[in-house]
Order: sequence, then structure tokens, then C-alpha cells
Amino acid sequence: VRDLRLDIIGFGHVGRALARLLLSRCEDVPFKVVSLVTAHHGWWSDPSGIDLSKAVDMTELPSKGPPPKIADLPGNVLVELTTLDPRTGRPALDHIQDALRERKHVVTANKGPIAHHYPQLLGHAWVAGRQLRFEATVADCLPVFDLARAALPLAEIRRIRGIVSSTTNHVLSAAARGVPFAEALADAQRLGIAEADPANDLEGWDAAAKATILANVLLGARIGIDEVRRTAIDERTADEAARAARQGARLRPVITVERLPSRTRPHHLEGTRVRASFAAVRLDPLDPLFAVDGLSMALELETDLAGTVVVQLHDPHVDQVAYAVLTDLLEIAGWRSPV
Amino acid sequence: VRDLRLDIIGFGHVGRALARLLLSRCEDVPFKVVSLVTAHHGWWSDPSGIDLSKAVDMTELPSKGPPPKIADLPGNVLVELTTLDPRTGRPALDHIQDALRERKHVVTANKGPIAHHYPQLLGHAWVAGRQLRFEATVADCLPVFDLARAALPLAEIRRIRGIVSSTTNHVLSAAARGVPFAEALADAQRLGIAEADPANDLEGWDAAAKATILANVLLGARIGIDEVRRTAIDERTADEAARAARQGARLRPVITVERLPSRTRPHHLEGTRVRASFAAVRLDPLDPLFAVDGLSMALELETDLAGTVVVQLHDPHVDQVAYAVLTDLLEIAGWRSPV
Repeated sequence: VRDLRLDIIGFGHVGRALARLLLSRCEDVPFKVVSLVTAHHGWWSDPSGIDLSKAVDMTELPSKGPPPKIADLPGNVLVELTTLDPRTGRPALDHIQDALRERKHVVTANKGPIAHHYPQLLGHAWVAGRQLRFEATVADCLPVFDLARAALPLAEIRRIRGIVSSTTNHVLSAAARGVPFAEALADAQRLGIAEADPANDLEGWDAAAKATILANVLLGARIGIDEVRRTAIDERTADEAARAARQGARLRPVITVERLPSRTRPHHLEGTRVRASFAAVRLDPLDPLFAVDGLSMALELETDLAGTVVVQLHDPHVDQVAYAVLTDLLEIAGWRSPV
Repeated sequence: VRDLRLDIIGFGHVGRALARLLLSRCEDVPFKVVSLVTAHHGWWSDPSGIDLSKAVDMTELPSKGPPPKIADLPGNVLVELTTLDPRTGRPALDHIQDALRERKHVVTANKGPIAHHYPQLLGHAWVAGRQLRFEATVADCLPVFDLARAALPLAEIRRIRGIVSSTTNHVLSAAARGVPFAEALADAQRLGIAEADPANDLEGWDAAAKATILANVLLGARIGIDEVRRTAIDERTADEAARAARQGARLRPVITVERLPSRTRPHHLEGTRVRASFAAVRLDPLDPLFAVDGLSMALELETDLAGTVVVQLHDPHVDQVAYAVLTDLLEIAGWRSPV
């Protein structure tokens, strides 16, 4: 197992959950955290390793003033956990580029940079000879890229359907139980799932970013977020969800990405032709996505060789985001399961 | 990618599907088949590789008389695809032991040897310094062991529920649509899912073998098939399935394996304490296993770090068994996904 020294950027819910996870598994996972950097609550960096058990209880980290540049941090892996503007991917994008330039591996839980700049970032990682991993960006620790790598070798993914947008699924699931739209939305905000301005979720930008990642990474497309057709979820959709539930069906916020026939072998700069969308879809009880309720997430992958594989993560928590980051780190460390 | 020379034992539906798969992907997968051996339809062995495109069209292989011993076959990987007596695991068990003794890697689609002799076989493989892989034994290419290795590192699996017994799920799914028990069973036999004597499936021996594999491999137990509590599926169960369907529920044939609390750290020879069972269970529509209809299969893994992960394989075919064998071969060859 390779020796990892982590520069963690961002120390909010996910960063703290990761720190607790690393502390609880310090016998199995001898990774050393050498930097913790926040935008507004200070930073802490020490090449010999910082004391995580102290850090998790601090609201303010000891060093004040502008934090060192990524290049000057002592780690060999950047763990990018900042909050960001999902429409531009900044500042996470700059952090990732700076880290790869310094030949650090990168693990990110930020979907923005991957949704907007995957081909370029993959190129940077390739040139640096380092890994860029982002398992947490689509659906917490629901296995997506890990699954494709380990269980679907040589298989071509033809179509993906998924429920990966917690706020909208929470709202529509609540509507099915008779909870009013505004109340369900306020509840999602209280739970910390929805942002203060929920437009990003309700208008499908969050889902579109995830659909873009799936299309570009798993299907080899080269689309932008704008190319995902979005149908917003609103009060009317919630009414429809309540009606569907009375009839034994469910309305679920579903992203769909499908490969389109192309006459010629795709040029690698153009990528595979795909159609991608996000909308509330009525599902019957025998649909594999029917039971994906509340905060649960799922993906259905239609493939040539493996048939149709569905993966679901039941009712995840922020700890499952941290675990997804840990699986990426273990992969970079060359960790092999004993089984 | 390592050079693999395959000795394939058994050339029925799965073996032929594997041969077609290898032929269709010969550019990506440069494995050489050097032996094909059947019990009653001859054999063909050639260290320079046999012509698979000819073999797939033969009902009788060219060489007659007793086939060479495993030790004398020219391959470095044994692919064990014989039909077998699931209660004893023979003759597959002998083939696997002979191959490991000769320091050949082994891939098997036979659940018997793994259900009955996993600890010993693992020991043999370890001594030989070779791999023993059996992804196809539980649920075709539904990712089970691949998933645990790739997506659940360090996680402890606490409980497994699964639908992995096609005959019984086919019968109960048909009953839910109003098809009589005997007719659904005959249909399963016609489709080649159920054996001529369906007792093995209906009494839960098939499911118990799979529960045993899951318990011993994924939970570190050391149970025998007899320790799985079985409740047989019969005409009365089918009536119950029809009644449940009229009420919007489903009766599904579910295996359950759960870790029991143990006061002491388990001794590795004793293994983890578990409780395992097979029975028809009534499920409501929001249960992740509700929609697993007909020939579909699924597993729900409750873990400490990853939460609850569900994987489903929708309506698989014999090609998906062959693909599971291929994923094992790719793993042995050290094949890495480009993503």
C-alpha cells in the first residue's frame, strides 16, 4: 500500500465525516493528513501530520491569514471538498488543476469540475501520470465508476436511467405521502440536503451535472450541462406525484442518458452521440426504480454484455459521501481487498 | 495483460456461450482456448490453441476415449463449467483441486464446490499462489464478489437479503399474474431454468448453497449448507403469492444471511457466527426487492461504512453467466479498465 499524505481542502460536513472515518480506521488506513485548508475558518498544515482528533473538534483552525498555495502544501494527494458554484465549478477547478500540475493525485467530491471539464482534467492527470478520482460526485458511495471498472469490463453501456437528485426525490416522495410541496422543500433544507436557494435542484441543474458526468465518463460523450434537457420540478409536479401515488404508481425525478446510433466510429474529440434528460417520470411498482424513495439513489445501466444492472443506495448520510472519498483514496494507495 | 491458456471442462450452454463471447471479442481478449473437455461428447486439446469457431458448431468433439487428466492438459487456467451434483459438488471439486495442485488458476461457475469446500479450496489456492474465482456461482453476472472487492473496501457486511433462485422466483412471479403452479413450473423447465427434478430448487437447496457461499465468502462464516433454514416453495406458497399480488404486495423467495453478535473476536477456523435462511417473504412495493420479478436476481447488502447497497440484474440470460466467467478471466489476466 502506497504512502499517502493528504491535503484536504474544505472542512465542512464531508471533510469532518472523512476525518472521523480516518480516525476510526487509523489501524487499517495509515494515511497521514498533512493539511486542512478552509476558505474562512483558517488552516493547519504540518509535513509530519496534523492531529486529526484535535482538528475535528475545532471550528477555527489554528493558522490564520491566506493559506499556502496548493503547490506549497506538503501532501501528495489533494482531497477537494470545498463547496462551489456548480455552474462554473470554481474554485474547485483551480485547486484540481494546480494539484495535477504539481503531480499530486486528486480525489474530489465536487461535481462541477468533472461535469464541466472532464476531458481536459483527464488529460492533465494523464500528463502528470497521476490519478483523478471522483466516485462521490454522482451519488455518494453508490458504486458507479468502481462498479463499471470492476464488474463491467469490456461491456458497452447503452443507456442509463438514474435517481441521483436527493432534493427532488425527497420532495416527490413526501408528496406521495400527502406532504405539501413547500413543507417538503423546507424539510429538505432543514436536513441540509437542499440549498438555501433550491432553484439549482428544482430546475434540474444538479441532476444535469450528474447526467453530464455519466455521459462523458461512462459513455464517452463530450456534452456540456446545457445539452441535458431539463423539466423543472414544481408544485404542479408534486400534485401529480400525489395523484400517481393514489393510483399505486410513483413519480420519480429521473435522469436518462442514452447512446444514439452514429454512422461513423466516433472521433475521440467529438465523443459518442448521446441524448440526456431530466424529468419527473411516472413509474409502476415493477420498475426497478420505483422503490427508490426519499433520499435513496439508484442507477440502472443497460449494457451489451452484462444485461441490465441496477445499483441502489438506500437512505444515505454524509458518512456515505466520506466513505466514497475513502474508497478513491484506497484505490490510489493500491489497496487490495483480502477476499 | 497476462497470457491465458484455457482448459475448459464442460461444453454445454454456458461453455458454448463463453466460446461465442471469446470469439466475438477476440481482438480485446487474446485468450487462447487450448482444451475443451466433455464427459460424454469427446474432447479436443491442442497446446497451440483449438479453433473455437469450428468447436461451437460441433455436437461431438473430435477426440474420443478417456480425456487427458487435468494435469496433462496444456492450459494455465481451468474453466470449470461441468454440470454437477450440487449436494456433493462432484466432479467439479476434483477438477478444481487437481488444477490448483498443478498451479493452474481456476474459474468456476459451479456453486457446489464453493458452497461445500470454500475454506479448503481457498487454502489450496493460497498454497499454489494461484487465483480461484467464482463470480458466476451466486447470480450470473450480478456483481457480488467484484462489487465487494471494488466498492466496499474495509466495510463490514452485516446482513444480506437476496433473490438468487430463478426457478422459485419465476414460479411465484407467475402465480402473482394468475398462472397455476404446475404450469409455471413446467414453463421454467421448458426454459431450461428448472431441472427435470425441480425438488432441488423448490426445497431451497439451490438457494441454500448460494446463501452458504455468501455467508462464508463475504461474512467470513464457516457454515455448511445444512445450517441454512429452508422453507420449501409449493402449491400453497403459490396461492399465497396470488393473494399477496391482489393486495398490491409480492411474495418473493428470499435468502437472508445475518451476522450474529459474538462476545469474542471470531477464531478464524470457526468463523463469524451467522444465521441463514431461505423462505418466501411478503414484500411491499417500497421494498428494494419488490420489483425483482421473474428471472431477475438481486442482493441487498447492509454494511457499516457504505450503508445499504442493493444490486439487481434484470432478466438475465445464459450469456450473462458466460460474461461473469469472462470477468473472472479478465481479473486473472490483470486486465485494467481504461476508465
